[in-house]
Amino acid sequence: MAKLWGGRFTEPTDTTVEAFTASVDFDRRLYRQDIAGSVAHATMLAEVGVLDVVERDAIVDGLRDIESDIDAGRFEWSTALEDVHMNIEAALTERIGEAGKKLHTGRSRNDQVATDLRLYVRGETDAVVDALRRLRGVLLDLAEREAQTVMPGFTHLQSAQPITFGHHVLAWHAMLERDTARFADARRRINRLPLGAAALAGTSFPVDPLITARLLEFDGLCENSVDAVSDRDFVLEFTSAGAILMVHLSRMCEELVLWCSPLYGFVSLPDAFCTGSSIMPQKKNPDVPELVRGKTGRVVGSLMGLLTLMKAQPLAYNRDNQEDKESLFDAADTVRGCLAVFTEMIGGLEADRETLRAAAGRGHATATDLADYLVRAGMAFRDAHEAVGRAVRGAVETGRELEELDVAELRALCGDAVGADVRDVLSLDGSVASRAHPGGTAPVRVREAIGAARTRLAGAPPGR
Amino acid sequence: MAKLWGGRFTEPTDTTVEAFTASVDFDRRLYRQDIAGSVAHATMLAEVGVLDVVERDAIVDGLRDIESDIDAGRFEWSTALEDVHMNIEAALTERIGEAGKKLHTGRSRNDQVATDLRLYVRGETDAVVDALRRLRGVLLDLAEREAQTVMPGFTHLQSAQPITFGHHVLAWHAMLERDTARFADARRRINRLPLGAAALAGTSFPVDPLITARLLEFDGLCENSVDAVSDRDFVLEFTSAGAILMVHLSRMCEELVLWCSPLYGFVSLPDAFCTGSSIMPQKKNPDVPELVRGKTGRVVGSLMGLLTLMKAQPLAYNRDNQEDKESLFDAADTVRGCLAVFTEMIGGLEADRETLRAAAGRGHATATDLADYLVRAGMAFRDAHEAVGRAVRGAVETGRELEELDVAELRALCGDAVGADVRDVLSLDGSVASRAHPGGTAPVRVREAIGAARTRLAGAPPGR
Amino acid sequence: MAKLWGGRFTEPTDTTVEAFTASVDFDRRLYRQDIAGSVAHATMLAEVGVLDVVERDAIVDGLRDIESDIDAGRFEWSTALEDVHMNIEAALTERIGEAGKKLHTGRSRNDQVATDLRLYVRGETDAVVDALRRLRGVLLDLAEREAQTVMPGFTHLQSAQPITFGHHVLAWHAMLERDTARFADARRRINRLPLGAAALAGTSFPVDPLITARLLEFDGLCENSVDAVSDRDFVLEFTSAGAILMVHLSRMCEELVLWCSPLYGFVSLPDAFCTGSSIMPQKKNPDVPELVRGKTGRVVGSLMGLLTLMKAQPLAYNRDNQEDKESLFDAADTVRGCLAVFTEMIGGLEADRETLRAAAGRGHATATDLADYLVRAGMAFRDAHEAVGRAVRGAVETGRELEELDVAELRALCGDAVGADVRDVLSLDGSVASRAHPGGTAPVRVREAIGAARTRLAGAPPGR
Amino acid sequence: MAKLWGGRFTEPTDTTVEAFTASVDFDRRLYRQDIAGSVAHATMLAEVGVLDVVERDAIVDGLRDIESDIDAGRFEWSTALEDVHMNIEAALTERIGEAGKKLHTGRSRNDQVATDLRLYVRGETDAVVDALRRLRGVLLDLAEREAQTVMPGFTHLQSAQPITFGHHVLAWHAMLERDTARFADARRRINRLPLGAAALAGTSFPVDPLITARLLEFDGLCENSVDAVSDRDFVLEFTSAGAILMVHLSRMCEELVLWCSPLYGFVSLPDAFCTGSSIMPQKKNPDVPELVRGKTGRVVGSLMGLLTLMKAQPLAYNRDNQEDKESLFDAADTVRGCLAVFTEMIGGLEADRETLRAAAGRGHATATDLADYLVRAGMAFRDAHEAVGRAVRGAVETGRELEELDVAELRALCGDAVGADVRDVLSLDGSVASRAHPGGTAPVRVREAIGAARTRLAGAPPGR
Repeated sequence: MAKLWGGRFTEPTDTTVEAFTASVDFDRRLYRQDIAGSVAHATMLAEVGVLDVVERDAIVDGLRDIESDIDAGRFEWSTALEDVHMNIEAALTERIGEAGKKLHTGRSRNDQVATDLRLYVRGETDAVVDALRRLRGVLLDLAEREAQTVMPGFTHLQSAQPITFGHHVLAWHAMLERDTARFADARRRINRLPLGAAALAGTSFPVDPLITARLLEFDGLCENSVDAVSDRDFVLEFTSAGAILMVHLSRMCEELVLWCSPLYGFVSLPDAFCTGSSIMPQKKNPDVPELVRGKTGRVVGSLMGLLTLMKAQPLAYNRDNQEDKESLFDAADTVRGCLAVFTEMIGGLEADRETLRAAAGRGHATATDLADYLVRAGMAFRDAHEAVGRAVRGAVETGRELEELDVAELRALCGDAVGADVRDVLSLDGSVASRAHPGGTAPVRVREAIGAARTRLAGAPPGR
Repeated sequence: MAKLWGGRFTEPTDTTVEAFTASVDFDRRLYRQDIAGSVAHATMLAEVGVLDVVERDAIVDGLRDIESDIDAGRFEWSTALEDVHMNIEAALTERIGEAGKKLHTGRSRNDQVATDLRLYVRGETDAVVDALRRLRGVLLDLAEREAQTVMPGFTHLQSAQPITFGHHVLAWHAMLERDTARFADARRRINRLPLGAAALAGTSFPVDPLITARLLEFDGLCENSVDAVSDRDFVLEFTSAGAILMVHLSRMCEELVLWCSPLYGFVSLPDAFCTGSSIMPQKKNPDVPELVRGKTGRVVGSLMGLLTLMKAQPLAYNRDNQEDKESLFDAADTVRGCLAVFTEMIGGLEADRETLRAAAGRGHATATDLADYLVRAGMAFRDAHEAVGRAVRGAVETGRELEELDVAELRALCGDAVGADVRDVLSLDGSVASRAHPGGTAPVRVREAIGAARTRLAGAPPGR
Repeated sequence: MAKLWGGRFTEPTDTTVEAFTASVDFDRRLYRQDIAGSVAHATMLAEVGVLDVVERDAIVDGLRDIESDIDAGRFEWSTALEDVHMNIEAALTERIGEAGKKLHTGRSRNDQVATDLRLYVRGETDAVVDALRRLRGVLLDLAEREAQTVMPGFTHLQSAQPITFGHHVLAWHAMLERDTARFADARRRINRLPLGAAALAGTSFPVDPLITARLLEFDGLCENSVDAVSDRDFVLEFTSAGAILMVHLSRMCEELVLWCSPLYGFVSLPDAFCTGSSIMPQKKNPDVPELVRGKTGRVVGSLMGLLTLMKAQPLAYNRDNQEDKESLFDAADTVRGCLAVFTEMIGGLEADRETLRAAAGRGHATATDLADYLVRAGMAFRDAHEAVGRAVRGAVETGRELEELDVAELRALCGDAVGADVRDVLSLDGSVASRAHPGGTAPVRVREAIGAARTRLAGAPPGR
Repeated sequence: MAKLWGGRFTEPTDTTVEAFTASVDFDRRLYRQDIAGSVAHATMLAEVGVLDVVERDAIVDGLRDIESDIDAGRFEWSTALEDVHMNIEAALTERIGEAGKKLHTGRSRNDQVATDLRLYVRGETDAVVDALRRLRGVLLDLAEREAQTVMPGFTHLQSAQPITFGHHVLAWHAMLERDTARFADARRRINRLPLGAAALAGTSFPVDPLITARLLEFDGLCENSVDAVSDRDFVLEFTSAGAILMVHLSRMCEELVLWCSPLYGFVSLPDAFCTGSSIMPQKKNPDVPELVRGKTGRVVGSLMGLLTLMKAQPLAYNRDNQEDKESLFDAADTVRGCLAVFTEMIGGLEADRETLRAAAGRGHATATDLADYLVRAGMAFRDAHEAVGRAVRGAVETGRELEELDVAELRALCGDAVGADVRDVLSLDGSVASRAHPGGTAPVRVREAIGAARTRLAGAPPGR
């Protein structure tokens, strides 16, 4: 098939090379964006007088027809035509004749693909933000349900202090709220129009990119034509935000896998979210959190691949950049898929309140409360810490929990400041309730925090 | 030396382990942040009545003394005391006695280190933004100096179309302007106070983190105590923005190295920015751009290391996170060092205008102008492209540049639409001047773009 | 569809979850390996008496039928059956009845998939080694053709010393020879049988893995059943070797792109390996080297993703590991595709000998030869270096090349040691010929090195 | 200070640039390698007649003096002299006069630094292999001690089948045995001499690199001078092997952290390997495994940084490569430090046999044994799997373990094949003992495997 750029060539492209260099197998995914961009470009060309109205209408109608055919699976893609852009332009000219050959006036594939890709990334950004909001809603519901469920708070995977399950879930929510803001910030840099840059220098036709930007709902223009076709920051920034988001999901998954293990047994997932073993009849595996945790590497790998791709590329466009798409597509699909399945799964999660409370009672988790008690009785914090350390050693050596020591023992180990009221301090509910400052784990604070988070979530998405 | 947490332990730490786990060798770098945080914490504790004024003053004065000693290199750091926090607290208690043991009331190293690190990252963010602004200023000066210097614009490292040197430099500026915005956005998520979270659950003391936040100029609080001590997004986001910035510098460096090579000879760097060879007496190597290009990998590697670090960590704090510091420090130092040396180097860069113009005249760089000319004469763009392709092939086969064909030849190859005025279209200056829409390379537009960029640059830094 | 592991479950798998967790869309690619493994497993089970001969034959014939159907595109894959293993086993039982249900005796999907994957990686390793050998052959042909073509050798992209083109191509060859050895070394660790490990603990059936290993041509067994199902080192090592190989190709590509640029013009690629521009009719872009350079990031990204995947996974198998396949497949496909297209492209590469020689004469490239000359005349090397440095400065200041200075000038600048024979030393051919030790650039040495490389290339591939 | 290459320069190096580009702060670490290389080079130069014996002796003695001074901390390093090479050469000339200026005859810093670095990597490779062997020895001791300790084997972190603790530790050993082989393979590619390549083209002096190689105990020469100075594969391959090794350690660490958590309690670490909390007096944290797990990211990051560094570098040496050192040094130090501390820690690890056995009895871990039993009684495996699945569901619904069902119940759920002997099959010891094929978990096999591993470990290290 004749190449649209073949004038100066004396030899046809090698077919191996054609297959190796063609991108239509994956960039056809951008056909809606490509057609939207071409419709806007043709409309602008008509407004500034480069096309007449009849030509514009032929182009727009032809493109809409092509879009319907692709939607319906009736369009025949050709590797020889290299990419989505050339496939659509060639089909247009075949369908509408002369006017089709005028569509590419004042633009190049360089600014065209940059426009398509920005439209795609903008759409994915909005979809990720929406998915984040749905997941955050489900998390807030779970946090509310378990706002006063006591569980062990861990540091170093050792029992640290009792917290509430709802408070822990709010920590998950906080990560995702930052993700939401990060994507919204990125959107402002994504949503700028490169069209008009043509190959790299701009064009000698009197294009008006502000018209095109308005039609495509871009917030503004790329300021410089060389940068417009060279820049892939918007791909890097989207993928970077995606990698950070996946790290967050991986942390939740790690906890879920752990909590589902028989020795923890903190939560259960519905059968519908687990699978079995081909050999071990008793198995019920938390496949979804494991798989999401595994997919983290995939998005981190995409980010690494894209940074390596862009490193030390001279301006302006180089063919290297054909490689920006598949990693990006995969990252976007992975992030969205994980958010969707996570949202369903969290909806079905059940906390085993008894097991959680029992676990909170192990590991001397209220030792800090005892130290604080001694401080309030006048001891310096460092001395109190030392005294309680001795008490814990005493409990460990006699195979008991700290709260199983009686008042006399505690007084012997920690000094006369210990009174009868020390028992309240060592209780799980007393401990949790006492952390009642902003951000603390007291149920009253957790409920307040849920309310505030719901208000923020209900607000307009930033950046739109 | 006795550990401040040693109460429950029966055996001292193994010295190999002590050396392996101690962080004071690198985290002592945070001493100013650590002291500022402690001063604010003590001030807050006094405001809410946990300390009295005498204690507070003793603590604040003691910390200021310690800071002076460290500034002056008089402070003795101890590996046995593990980290910057314990070293300073132990010294404080040694100096001021009892009151020193009360400083740690209502906090933990977990929220303390998170606070120190956020103060550090905030400071580095501001420093990077300032350095970016200085470099951008120097780039705008260079762009202005060379606003009408014609050079070849490249795509695929092949001559594409003539542009101006100033226009190219504005593409560099555009990258750095996005970097500036990216760091400014990150700052909003960095600048939140974790103190009050204590180990992970909050504290039973009546702390008021809003007071501490105000004293330390934080924009707000971390919303959830578990998240406050688990979150290292601010490290990831800073490093990610740094990696993207370094990719930008690597692209400029790639071009500078190329432009300094004898076969290009587009620019020269002052001797002061080059070094020689130990064996080849004639060498003058563009070491600075090479080295900056090489340092790109370093920051990308730090980002990858940090993402790997955080992947699948269960909440809340784990000792793994001690590893967040060195990569971060190295990334911040590298980015700042590269920006500083780049700023000096760009100031000394000289463009060789003759060589640039001569190079622009090679490679049939105005072929697109000829195609546009034919379109304006009524030919469809695709037909014009094909016709000019034939003309280029004719020129190549006779060993000439396209602009060396005469009007008769051009007419024979491209059709009757070719008139005598075609010569103007094929000239470098005519080509450049014709790209006069927003973002285009025409000198008039370049000067406008410089003016607009200067205005944006002079504006208040976003986020502060 | 009923799950083969569904006995203990009370609720069917959620269909979103089914789609999210199913791997059959990509792991069906392993059907040949899966069937080969099952045939060997069944044969072994019959040899040790767990199956009878009739059962074995039914299984083997049934599997061969299924393989034919898949080959011919007649097999219907089911997402509900999750993966390639369950799809094939379910089809087998449907076709041959009872015997099919016995195939899975004494194994698990965990050791089955590890076996399939090792067979796949072994096959890809062999294919990569073969492709490397073909490319190396083409490079040696090119090196021979250009064994005495003089070109500038660069360091820092500055002219350093004249070398021959053939010598430079041998540097490329040396990289690929190391790659060949690295893959061959990896093969020894790849080619070990995990079957027999079952889920993780081995099996209570009297399996004999040595029989299975012999049938599948494995070099040995995985030593430990828990490791056998947990280990993905062979994936990491293959991908790591692939990433290093791609870095090598990227370096060659960088040079090819540079050498094709009009200001270098060192080589030309056939039209069949280049493409044009949609807007600029004169363009002939070196797409293949650009694209291969771009694909480097892809394989590096896969490696990063896989390392992240494996980091901190507890033993033994976790569902995370489903994510090992797509990155691996993509890395293998990319490496093989790049090697194939490179081999064709190098075959068509033409060096422009005149341009290369002219470029070698620029940049005072024989300055080191002059210094060596002075040393041979008795001057210490450091003094000679200094003297020649002055001579180069003299040449630069008068706008000449070093070799354009006459003997009198050289004597004035470098001292009386300079004799009339200095002219030979400053000539390109003299310089090149003088570097005649092993590994040096003298044409005679280059031809010897090509001969030695051909002998090594003709030897048996290591590891097979 | 006068640069040794300053002849052609008219302007001194900018001091910021000097500080930015100097490497002596980190490459001085290579002084022993640098001096060893220079001694060998001078010895060779004397053997081929370029130096006389008096000059050689002066150089060798001078270098030995310098080495002693550096060893003793008496050497003054200068940033102005850039790097370790120039510092030592300048000191030599200052000490011994004329002969010192002759040392650099026939070499360049390019081949010199490549030689130093290969010597360093060779030494680190040997040290890592030795450290791996020590750790493997300690693991085999632990495996032997716990060869029949029953513990739960996990897949998906769910109870899968009982295994022995010794068997699990052998899986760790298997990972490290592969690491040992991988480093040994890399050593063969590392241990080749680049000296003789000079800047990139070889030298006109009659050097004999085979002499130098013999003196420095290299296995052979780099085959091509351009490659010799461009190649950093040995750095990539060492770091890649290190990253895979760290992934292994991270997996062990993940398990250790988990096993130390109070809900598992499988093992305990000595107090000497744990640290406490600044706020929570009861804490005893498994810091060492957490920190090693965290350091995994560091080495992975170094690998990624180095791959990014090398990507698309044109040949031969570029200043970018100065950046190869710090990442490499850090990776080597990290790997060695982690291996050393791991070896000590494993030596102190204690398994809690009762807790392990109790955990093994939870989660229906012998369900597979029951299915195998049914198969031996004539049921097809798939039917047996289904039947046992029903039995597990029965046990779950009545809150019991599978082995708590009596024979009648089992017969009702699984069919008449169930006999009285089924109780043995469901016991932990029976299950473990039955997996007695090569690689299986039966104690007898574990002891055999330990013996075989000890024999391999005692063998000569491969590659030396």
